[in-house]
Amino acid sequence: MLLGGIEAGGTKFVCAVSNGNSKQIIDKVSFPTGNPEETLLEAKGFFEKHAIEALGVASFGPVDLNIKSKTYGSFLNTPKEKWKHYPLLEQLRALFNIPVYMDTDVNAACLAEYKFGAGQGSDTCLYITVGTGFGAGLVQNGEIYQGKNHSEMGHVIIKKHPDDPYDGCCPYHGSCIEGMASGLAIEKRYGKKGMELTENDQVWDIEAYYLAQAIMNYYVVLIPEKIIVGGGVMKQEKLYPLIRSYFAEQMNGYLDVGPVDELIVAPELNDEQGVIGAMELIRTK
Amino acid sequence: MLLGGIEAGGTKFVCAVSNGNSKQIIDKVSFPTGNPEETLLEAKGFFEKHAIEALGVASFGPVDLNIKSKTYGSFLNTPKEKWKHYPLLEQLRALFNIPVYMDTDVNAACLAEYKFGAGQGSDTCLYITVGTGFGAGLVQNGEIYQGKNHSEMGHVIIKKHPDDPYDGCCPYHGSCIEGMASGLAIEKRYGKKGMELTENDQVWDIEAYYLAQAIMNYYVVLIPEKIIVGGGVMKQEKLYPLIRSYFAEQMNGYLDVGPVDELIVAPELNDEQGVIGAMELIRTK
Ligand SMILES: Nc1ncnc2c1ncn2[C@@H]1O[C@H](COP(=O)(O)OP(=O)(O)O)[C@@H](O)[C@H]1O
Ligand SMILES: Nc1ncnc2c1ncn2[C@@H]1O[C@H](COP(=O)(O)OP(=O)(O)O)[C@@H](O)[C@H]1O
Ligand SMILES: [Zn+2]
Ligand SMILES: [Zn+2]
Repeated sequence: MLLGGIEAGGTKFVCAVSNGNSKQIIDKVSFPTGNPEETLLEAKGFFEKHAIEALGVASFGPVDLNIKSKTYGSFLNTPKEKWKHYPLLEQLRALFNIPVYMDTDVNAACLAEYKFGAGQGSDTCLYITVGTGFGAGLVQNGEIYQGKNHSEMGHVIIKKHPDDPYDGCCPYHGSCIEGMASGLAIEKRYGKKGMELTENDQVWDIEAYYLAQAIMNYYVVLIPEKIIVGGGVMKQEKLYPLIRSYFAEQMNGYLDVGPVDELIVAPELNDEQGVIGAMELIRTK
Repeated sequence: MLLGGIEAGGTKFVCAVSNGNSKQIIDKVSFPTGNPEETLLEAKGFFEKHAIEALGVASFGPVDLNIKSKTYGSFLNTPKEKWKHYPLLEQLRALFNIPVYMDTDVNAACLAEYKFGAGQGSDTCLYITVGTGFGAGLVQNGEIYQGKNHSEMGHVIIKKHPDDPYDGCCPYHGSCIEGMASGLAIEKRYGKKGMELTENDQVWDIEAYYLAQAIMNYYVVLIPEKIIVGGGVMKQEKLYPLIRSYFAEQMNGYLDVGPVDELIVAPELNDEQGVIGAMELIRTK
């Protein structure tokens, strides 16, 4: 049975086909995200070569995932004007005429890492991505956690680092974790992209301080067994030991978190966790 | 079938018996918490008058609730020296020789409010208690949320109010929410108990600011449908509208949370949610 997966990102779409086992991708394509109609047609063109029987979609957000809601499967307040309120799930169902399953990109990525990557064997698995934005998803006992709607963990309010004058770039909250520690926040604070700041130790020290604080907050709420941190900003691998050490410092021995280098880890699925997770949604939902 | 419930608090124990329906308490007693052996014997004395067939225990924490752990059912790092590492569940099982079920006081209270109180009908229900300490529990789809162990939401790190010079009383984290907004924090900050500060508006303004910030953080992680806030400090009822308004201000329209006075509410079970929840554990676990 062929399965299709779409990672619907704000800047690019990734489409893939697998032969039953979502991890074994047999064909894949990636193209920039344009307006909704042309982007979906491009996806349709790719999948026409394969007789997929079901489709999973891992979408950027926020999207309405409350099954009781009239706008289930539609975008909410996204800054991408053309996608605002676009009924993605409904349109995909109409276009493909096969079962379509949908969740957020981070939730799907979390599911993939839990099933095939760094989260294997952990009953409560948190996946965080620090990219242009900041997001996180949770898989608990094999299922994606969802409250009334999907989580929005990028918007936890955090305490400022004493040496950081920056007020944050979140248009809603200023200094939530996305506003302070996303790739965009780095760029706006320093006027340079992350990869141009590799040699500036203070940048990564402050970054790690914030990421550790968000992780501390997620930890005490969710008590995860595994915390996987990925996304473009984490290509700065020196962040891992810094985050672990700030996390241990902030936790200050209150809870027994086990070995912190086994708790806070890098992803293992080479930037394919989104699209693999999209296909896994078919099996899980 | 008679059910027994114990709310094992740090300052007092409440024991109750119900006739199948946990909400209908037919006998109840309360006594100060002493050392473990004498306190358990006092509980045993009360229950001897009733032929209970199962017992639920809602305990102060932290306790080990990881079923895979060797110390499952024992206290962890509690400041109450005599109870530290005490194997509560094991001792109760030995003493009563009937099935015994255990969870934390806040988790049990959450379950009770979800089943019989302010949380009825909400798929994701958060219960917060602001007493001497600060704690919170979550019921999702009818079950108590638990990661690797029970949640420890009282220890989320928060941003300080600009007019608050106090550094917090949590021995581990200083300014976590328990350190800044618990009844003990109020007492330590102002040198007076909450009820003696009723007329001081700034006290409640700052208190509400912190509680709203913690709620904001729980909200974006858990996306609850209902948030019930109880405990001694919330006897200051003017806190409710203040918390709602700070919460709405901090959320700043990012997520559609519905009417905030239906989202953030008072408990309905008159300080019996702990012991009612203890009995409900029998049915749920
Ligand atoms: N080597 C690097 N060091 C630091 N930051 C990086 C690095 N590579 C990419 N980034 C940052 O990561 C962000 C992009 O994240 P990514 O996860 O690749 O994509 P997106 O979030 O847009 O889907 C950008 O802000 C970019 O500046
Ligand atoms: N009317 C009140 N106004 C403000 N604070 C109060 C009031 N009543 C009790 N408190 C505070 O609530 C805390 C006790 O909370 P409670 O939930 O009753 O017990 P505990 O947490 O010890 O089980 C104390 O710090 C006390 O000062
Ligand atoms: Zn934000
Ligand atoms: Zn603390």
